[in-house]
Amino acid sequence: MTKTEPIVQRLALIGTGLIGGSIARAARASGAARTIVATARSPETRKRIKELGFADQVTETNSEAVKDADLVIVSIPVGASGAVAKDIGPHLKQGAILSDVGSVKGSVVRDMGPYVPKGVHFIPAHPVAGTENSGPDAGFAELFVNRWCILTPVEGTDPAATEKLSAFWSALGANVETMTADHHDLVLAVTSHLPHLIAYTIVGTADELGDVTQSEVLKFSAGGFRDFTRIAASDPTMWRDVFLHNKEAVLEMLGTFNEDLSKLTRAIRRGDGDALFDHFSRTRAIRRGIVQIGQDSPAPDFGRPHPTLPDAPVPKPYASDDS
Amino acid sequence: MTKTEPIVQRLALIGTGLIGGSIARAARASGAARTIVATARSPETRKRIKELGFADQVTETNSEAVKDADLVIVSIPVGASGAVAKDIGPHLKQGAILSDVGSVKGSVVRDMGPYVPKGVHFIPAHPVAGTENSGPDAGFAELFVNRWCILTPVEGTDPAATEKLSAFWSALGANVETMTADHHDLVLAVTSHLPHLIAYTIVGTADELGDVTQSEVLKFSAGGFRDFTRIAASDPTMWRDVFLHNKEAVLEMLGTFNEDLSKLTRAIRRGDGDALFDHFSRTRAIRRGIVQIGQDSPAPDFGRPHPTLPDAPVPKPYASDDS
Repeated sequence: MTKTEPIVQRLALIGTGLIGGSIARAARASGAARTIVATARSPETRKRIKELGFADQVTETNSEAVKDADLVIVSIPVGASGAVAKDIGPHLKQGAILSDVGSVKGSVVRDMGPYVPKGVHFIPAHPVAGTENSGPDAGFAELFVNRWCILTPVEGTDPAATEKLSAFWSALGANVETMTADHHDLVLAVTSHLPHLIAYTIVGTADELGDVTQSEVLKFSAGGFRDFTRIAASDPTMWRDVFLHNKEAVLEMLGTFNEDLSKLTRAIRRGDGDALFDHFSRTRAIRRGIVQIGQDSPAPDFGRPHPTLPDAPVPKPYASDDS
Repeated sequence: MTKTEPIVQRLALIGTGLIGGSIARAARASGAARTIVATARSPETRKRIKELGFADQVTETNSEAVKDADLVIVSIPVGASGAVAKDIGPHLKQGAILSDVGSVKGSVVRDMGPYVPKGVHFIPAHPVAGTENSGPDAGFAELFVNRWCILTPVEGTDPAATEKLSAFWSALGANVETMTADHHDLVLAVTSHLPHLIAYTIVGTADELGDVTQSEVLKFSAGGFRDFTRIAASDPTMWRDVFLHNKEAVLEMLGTFNEDLSKLTRAIRRGDGDALFDHFSRTRAIRRGIVQIGQDSPAPDFGRPHPTLPDAPVPKPYASDDS
């Protein structure tokens, strides 16, 4: 991908945490936006954004930031979407695109939709990408490369506006797919919300045991547990809002998960090794599929760094024939 | 760590998959063993071990391999431990140390113990390290560096033998801790077995949904799901045996996990945002603890590689003051 012509003249970012801050950096690195305006209420955050240098302007109020912007992206916990839409609605430019990055889309449509003025294109979006870190320092320009961004335009949306938003995300390195908000919420309940809930649960479980100390849990976490702690270190406010706003889909998926867990539990209790082996062989294939389509690293252990044995010689190839 | 004097004159390895093959490579790289003998029943595996060059000798039978060895390490699924002990018992040298690497220790003590001749030091062990790969090609010399190896010597074990095995694992880069087999099985049920069971469950759940296609699960797996697929890609035979042999501790931990999951489910159903926020904030601290003691990488996303935006310029620092 080479540096693109600006797709957006003036990009306004409300929320400059991991996602908003990464959009700013990626938009600048790719040239997808000519001017980037960021907004932050607290003087500390405004100062930090200026130091990090990922915006051309930093404003104190949302209304000032969105004025004259042709693309406004709201990157905040979904529970605050409605209030922000109410705040900025009257200040949006005719013909502007209003979008977001929330992990739930049905509630965003319901909460923001009523405040979107006629003549403004409202296209909810969700880039499926992230790390366990949060805040303006956490973002980086490469976050969206080869990840998927899902657009959920409501019925009657101008196709040209959807095309423009799609081109913007493509310039940031993302693959773009379009679906309904309801289907998005069901898909993400499986691929993101349920995994987070399970990880949050098991990490909490390990923290509260009588017979095993926390120090033991930490020391011996390389047996598998540590993988879950990364996800369970995600932003608490963001995730509280996800579960409150995608309740039905999450509870539905939880039901299926619980049935499956009961099945495996029964196999363990009964000593049914064949059932366990069959299940464990099937899940192995799913990992291969994810690596094959480039959605995870083929390197063992996610490519985690392994310290070396200092001064260790390179193993010599087998030479003799004395076996 | 510099190259050490040989701690072991003749190391016999029964099983040369991820763990056995890594022990061989690490023992050679560190100089901890003067001669390394590996054994494999199939001609294909023997040929592959020779090509990989991590052993000095490759034998067809276990009895031939353990003859004259002063340290024998059995690295096979725990369900096969008893049969192997029965096979090699009569051929073990007086004064030799017999050890293993199984993820369950109580059953190994019960299954192998009866076949250990008087004068042989039987010290079960478990290096808490691994990747999702298996087979002789999967091993590498650095696997145990800064990981913990747990020794579970039975009562009456010669302290000098325990000390020698501990020195061997230290030479491979591991930290060594000693505990009872029963406590080991409880600790690992939390830090390893339960996480694997949960990961196997959720990956299976996602594979069987009516409303969400498998292609969607794979594409949008970067929302969290893909982390679970790595663990659920672990060796099915090894893990079947773990659950069959650590049944009680796993079922006990599953009980606690289910209670905690019910609590969070209820908070979601009732819309209790405070309960969710409190739980999610608490688990974040556990991640920090694991990173602080060096049991995981501090890099975001496990240090997963992120492709770059080609031709992207380095972002210029914020210069103007026009906000």
